[in-house]
Amino acid sequence: METSSLIKVTKTENSKINQVDFDNLVFGKTFTDHMFICDYKDGSWQTPEILPYQPLTLDPSAKVFHYGQAVFEGMKAYKDEQGKAWLFRPEENFERINKSSKRLNIPEFIKEYFLEGLNELLKLDSAWIKSGQDAGNALYIRPFVIATQAGVMASPSTEYKFIIICSPVQAYYTKDVKVKIADYYSRAANGGFGAAKAAGNYAGQFYPTKLVQEEGYDQVIWTDDTNHEHLEEAGTMNIFFRINDTLVTCPISERILDGITRKSVITMAEKLGITVEVRKVTVTELIEAANNGSLKESFGSGTAAVISPIGTIAHKDNVWTLTKPEDCYSAAIKKAILDVQYNVAEDTFGWRYEVK
Amino acid sequence: METSSLIKVTKTENSKINQVDFDNLVFGKTFTDHMFICDYKDGSWQTPEILPYQPLTLDPSAKVFHYGQAVFEGMKAYKDEQGKAWLFRPEENFERINKSSKRLNIPEFIKEYFLEGLNELLKLDSAWIKSGQDAGNALYIRPFVIATQAGVMASPSTEYKFIIICSPVQAYYTKDVKVKIADYYSRAANGGFGAAKAAGNYAGQFYPTKLVQEEGYDQVIWTDDTNHEHLEEAGTMNIFFRINDTLVTCPISERILDGITRKSVITMAEKLGITVEVRKVTVTELIEAANNGSLKESFGSGTAAVISPIGTIAHKDNVWTLTKPEDCYSAAIKKAILDVQYNVAEDTFGWRYEVK
Repeated sequence: METSSLIKVTKTENSKINQVDFDNLVFGKTFTDHMFICDYKDGSWQTPEILPYQPLTLDPSAKVFHYGQAVFEGMKAYKDEQGKAWLFRPEENFERINKSSKRLNIPEFIKEYFLEGLNELLKLDSAWIKSGQDAGNALYIRPFVIATQAGVMASPSTEYKFIIICSPVQAYYTKDVKVKIADYYSRAANGGFGAAKAAGNYAGQFYPTKLVQEEGYDQVIWTDDTNHEHLEEAGTMNIFFRINDTLVTCPISERILDGITRKSVITMAEKLGITVEVRKVTVTELIEAANNGSLKESFGSGTAAVISPIGTIAHKDNVWTLTKPEDCYSAAIKKAILDVQYNVAEDTFGWRYEVK
Repeated sequence: METSSLIKVTKTENSKINQVDFDNLVFGKTFTDHMFICDYKDGSWQTPEILPYQPLTLDPSAKVFHYGQAVFEGMKAYKDEQGKAWLFRPEENFERINKSSKRLNIPEFIKEYFLEGLNELLKLDSAWIKSGQDAGNALYIRPFVIATQAGVMASPSTEYKFIIICSPVQAYYTKDVKVKIADYYSRAANGGFGAAKAAGNYAGQFYPTKLVQEEGYDQVIWTDDTNHEHLEEAGTMNIFFRINDTLVTCPISERILDGITRKSVITMAEKLGITVEVRKVTVTELIEAANNGSLKESFGSGTAAVISPIGTIAHKDNVWTLTKPEDCYSAAIKKAILDVQYNVAEDTFGWRYEVK
């Protein structure tokens, strides 16, 4: 193993890997032996380090606890049957976390630190990445930035930590998702930070999500906050609708996350010969399509599950159940993307990034 | 000193108080010797503790870092010239933090723990509360709740910490504030959580605030996100306008914090014989009033400064400067509220709460 010249590495003396049951993982609960950490202070990012996975010690007045200055990314590493590990479009994650940071007034990170840090971390914890496309075996990677300066003045922090932690995972959703379209609560404001992958965009969804879960649904499909008439995203997924044989998804905006899986789904669908329209989708149009049978499929896209088929859509007191058509788009697109991710198909678009 | 039966107290062996220059405090940077902390786990709040002020140790996957499940309060304790310490409407802070918690799916806290915890903490750190109304000497109190469960699944935490830390402060703003009215960025969505004192409402303001600061202003006056036509709040302050001899402030809503100082200003202004109207205020109305001279005063209200007079208001390319009238409402209301807070005036409304 080569040692990076950029990153200071301290290896653990006690690997936890033998204590882990890789066939019975709970999503996001088990973490690998190491973590990447880089401090920002005195106006610049300091020397990045890889350390044994360990708790953070922060002053109770640290700004992240009070003012939510925190952004993150979600990405995955996959191991092929030859034992090679691959990342999927990591430069997109790097660019997006910096866009999120900018909106939250967090200093942008350094590309070499990010890519080399990821590479070193994944080499060190390579045994934690299990092959097995059918089981959905992968390593979920969570880069995040938190404001660590002590002090309760409501102003941007002068100190931050950029951290990467990794969690071995299996397939995320097993059943079709039941969603309810928002008609009162909202996720993001016009001129707000809905497009940022920011901590503050998530906490606000938990209560409205709990309300729909009490009615038997899994997630909320968020709509615009003005009229609740435009379908936007699901909070942890972008959303797609197949109307007749056209795949439709709304354009991204300052209210909607620019999903990397979303982009990949659009590109891959077109490669598979599916017509894709990126345009606004109204609740009225969706209801009409659901009622007249032209709504053939719907699914969410995101890093965790790639594609999560939606089986039930509700709006106010109306409920529609979707039956998968024989020429199921979501299954075809999901398989095509997974085949690239697990290195069993040609990487036409240059999406794969080898860990080496 | 009585010992609370509810709270486990561990006193510090090394007070830091002699190291503090109480005449040169930076807002929110110095903390007292002790902190209050109460853990939520296994479905209930555990025994509260008062401990020496100390760092928090959290797993890097703790939900507060990723999903922003965090709420807080801001309040103050004042010492009168007889050496008695007083809180100002603490039950209002308790009710509001629970409202904020509910919107963020955080379990509500227990009133006795809050009030008795505050009381014990302030008794223990009583020497940190300095008298001196003219210097604005006070103890700023920051109750907050953070989600501490380890795990990166985007779902509500099952574990929390309710913490209270205290910081000695002096008068907050010294100069009149320069504000610019938002015409692109927004603070809160309809159906969002703008009314909650939640961490996620603050980080999103830093970047737009930086942009106006680069133009020479201090703060943004936020408007509705649909048309930017209704004046709402300043992010850390509610706002008031004096049009001719009427004091006007917008009603609270799900986008606007229900400020305790705002309520107190309304009540106190009426007691002083000032006509107060709680109604929507449009940008158009404000511009008209600024142009025709009927806008006599404007100020923000909040715990930190009680009242911060606004000296300059800008909207797009227009700038208005306000000169304080001789019968200045803001100064009269501020003095009347401070006189209650520092126990030099009668407490007609039952706002004071003695620490004993």
